Amino acid sequence: MEEALLVDLYELTMAYSYFRRGMDDPATFAYFVRAPVPNRRFLLFAGLDPLLDHLEALQFTEDDRAYLDSLDLFDSAFLDYLGTLRFTGEVWAVPEGEMVFPGEPLVQVTAPRIQAQVVETYLLNVLNYQTLVASKAARILLAAGEEATVVDFSPRRDHGADAAVHAARASFLAGFHGTSNVLAGKRYGIPVVGTMAHSYVLSFPDELSAFRAFAEDHPRPVLLIDTYDVMKGARNAAAVARELRAVGRELSGVRLDSGDLVSYCRAVRELLDRAGFPEVRIFVSGDLDEHRIREFRARGGAAWGYGVGTRLGVSWDLPALPGVYKLVEDAHGPRMKRSPGKVTLPGRTQVWRREEGGRIQDTIALAEEVLPGRPLLAKAMEGGQRVLPPLDLHRRREEIRTRLFSLPPHLADLDPIDEPGYPVCLSRKLAALVENL
Amino acid sequence: MEEALLVDLYELTMAYSYFRRGMDDPATFAYFVRAPVPNRRFLLFAGLDPLLDHLEALQFTEDDRAYLDSLDLFDSAFLDYLGTLRFTGEVWAVPEGEMVFPGEPLVQVTAPRIQAQVVETYLLNVLNYQTLVASKAARILLAAGEEATVVDFSPRRDHGADAAVHAARASFLAGFHGTSNVLAGKRYGIPVVGTMAHSYVLSFPDELSAFRAFAEDHPRPVLLIDTYDVMKGARNAAAVARELRAVGRELSGVRLDSGDLVSYCRAVRELLDRAGFPEVRIFVSGDLDEHRIREFRARGGAAWGYGVGTRLGVSWDLPALPGVYKLVEDAHGPRMKRSPGKVTLPGRTQVWRREEGGRIQDTIALAEEVLPGRPLLAKAMEGGQRVLPPLDLHRRREEIRTRLFSLPPHLADLDPIDEPGYPVCLSRKLAALVENL
Repeated sequence: MEEALLVDLYELTMAYSYFRRGMDDPATFAYFVRAPVPNRRFLLFAGLDPLLDHLEALQFTEDDRAYLDSLDLFDSAFLDYLGTLRFTGEVWAVPEGEMVFPGEPLVQVTAPRIQAQVVETYLLNVLNYQTLVASKAARILLAAGEEATVVDFSPRRDHGADAAVHAARASFLAGFHGTSNVLAGKRYGIPVVGTMAHSYVLSFPDELSAFRAFAEDHPRPVLLIDTYDVMKGARNAAAVARELRAVGRELSGVRLDSGDLVSYCRAVRELLDRAGFPEVRIFVSGDLDEHRIREFRARGGAAWGYGVGTRLGVSWDLPALPGVYKLVEDAHGPRMKRSPGKVTLPGRTQVWRREEGGRIQDTIALAEEVLPGRPLLAKAMEGGQRVLPPLDLHRRREEIRTRLFSLPPHLADLDPIDEPGYPVCLSRKLAALVENL
Repeated sequence: MEEALLVDLYELTMAYSYFRRGMDDPATFAYFVRAPVPNRRFLLFAGLDPLLDHLEALQFTEDDRAYLDSLDLFDSAFLDYLGTLRFTGEVWAVPEGEMVFPGEPLVQVTAPRIQAQVVETYLLNVLNYQTLVASKAARILLAAGEEATVVDFSPRRDHGADAAVHAARASFLAGFHGTSNVLAGKRYGIPVVGTMAHSYVLSFPDELSAFRAFAEDHPRPVLLIDTYDVMKGARNAAAVARELRAVGRELSGVRLDSGDLVSYCRAVRELLDRAGFPEVRIFVSGDLDEHRIREFRARGGAAWGYGVGTRLGVSWDLPALPGVYKLVEDAHGPRMKRSPGKVTLPGRTQVWRREEGGRIQDTIALAEEVLPGRPLLAKAMEGGQRVLPPLDLHRRREEIRTRLFSLPPHLADLDPIDEPGYPVCLSRKLAALVENL
């Protein structure tokens, strides 16, 4: 598994030093997102299952070690040791799809120090991105509303192939209905969607011929009507809908990808209704995000569904999450970093959540404390083996959608607030420990 | 190669229709970036070699086809055909690392229509991201100056594993000196760099012990001095430097990752100079980008090198490039899309560049025209086989650095301009063709 080498070199230079000194005592590292996170009232945690897959498979191949040897930084005893290294630690984590807040421990890894250290880069890479996209997707769903069908169109602008697969996964987890990404469909069983590009229409002598051909070749045709003139496109779509109905079939929908979507949607809807096709769906796309969808609806725009690409997959208004992974405890007790602006909480911790009438109150406590409410972190891995079953993505998605669409306004609102006021506090014992260190 | 399935479903629904209709005539698609591109006075084109690798290896496996069969969208004749599909087309492209502008054709693919269509998603995914990062990296280098050592620290915030590898590649191509990403080092021979994290310092009873241990275990130690108190950290580093000198070794450098970098750098420099270590390098990191580096230097900050992570790898101020791939010609002649705001240039084209005294003037012309200057696009692939040798990344990087640091001010300047005024015009023949369509 070449991905073991997806490490920042310093993970290995530190590991080398620990190895030479026999400093392989158990250590605990915590993953959390630094506050504040601009433009987000909450986060949806995601990426745990892919992380656990990685930890289970972690192994430096002979090829990896030959490359490391070529760097002239490590001795052969260390390289031999790396060859035998497997992840044997314990992982506590919040379930994927849980609503969480900056400052809260989301994953805690306890393992021999070297193991716990070398998994840092991959852990951050996979958790930061999926949590970023799931959180963005949740906002887009809130803007589109519970009735709308919202799908991921992002692969062409995502940052690489696995970004595309992970964007599809994280947005589906948050409640999206599907993705255009066939690879993600195959890997995760996510429904795949897609119709035609402008190039299809341009490949025929005229738009009507293109629409006819597509409708003939596909069971549930959705026609892209803005290659030339939208209203002419809508008339051509209505013509094809009539032809289909004559043979006992129905046109599924039309898609609009440019121009003033509000007025076009209205005019196209009227045209289709008058032509006798009120059930033909209007699907819109084109640089959409939560703000544009909200504005579209506020201006009276009505669409059956939304295709959201670029601004979802790169989380346009917040393209990276300030998620970090910090040493919090080792054989010498709780540890705490005190760099200006980068303070961490010490020790192994738990988050206790109380929910009353839509209000959430989280308390971060020492791991051994028991507080009112429910604990968010559960044991996910022990001795390097999963103790949680793999995520049932489809079932979890349903739960998350239900919760998302019943959020109280102060969390569901899309506008930024000056003082985010995440509902997180520290237990008295944890606060006392912070004070003492 | 499972990556053949990294397609938007519509590539396949269109391909299916073309297949059923025998519409597999040669077609040409062009990749270009839509104007304007905010915050960028130029782009550095990148990602071609990985694209050519993908095209050479393109193949839908049996497993892929079994999944596609399960979608109930395609008949078995098409699935059998997909099993035999290989890319046999011709590719013309601008060389990687070339400075280019929005609107210019950067890659043109001519192939049987189905092949040319199904490669769209991957092509966009790989070219958009690498061009994005190379262009951002160029700006960061311009801010840091030719003397500075600038390295990629982005893996933990990049959007997935191949984003991390591609970010390292694209930034190195643009002129960076190295990366923290060991996987990228292995794959592309990019120099890898890295020292220690705060967790290392926290793993020892005190900072001085940590510094001593690290210096003992590593040939060219760079010490992270801001875990507790920066000036105390600098004194500890000086102490270790003295101890090293006593045994004939030298401390390589110190790293600062937080706080007011300008004043800390100055104070640390003074302290090290006075202690007799003027050659110990100061390395800075922590949410840097071109604007912060420029401000750091403008305020008198002096550093030997910069570690740039998040804001490079996600191209913070422009997290996606509006790069598109459009049908421009087929058996029926030049094609042109006329959707509002999304017009394309018709036909196979070439870019002719004239450079005089630092001024660039590009003219987009029909492929068969010959204009003054040099043509930017060259044949990269013919009959599905490369006709260009694989990129010599190290040599190309040198050429690009040389050119980058001799850019005229109107291109080198980092500030956005209201009217970007990319130096691109159309040849008379191309303008006439646009007019006629």
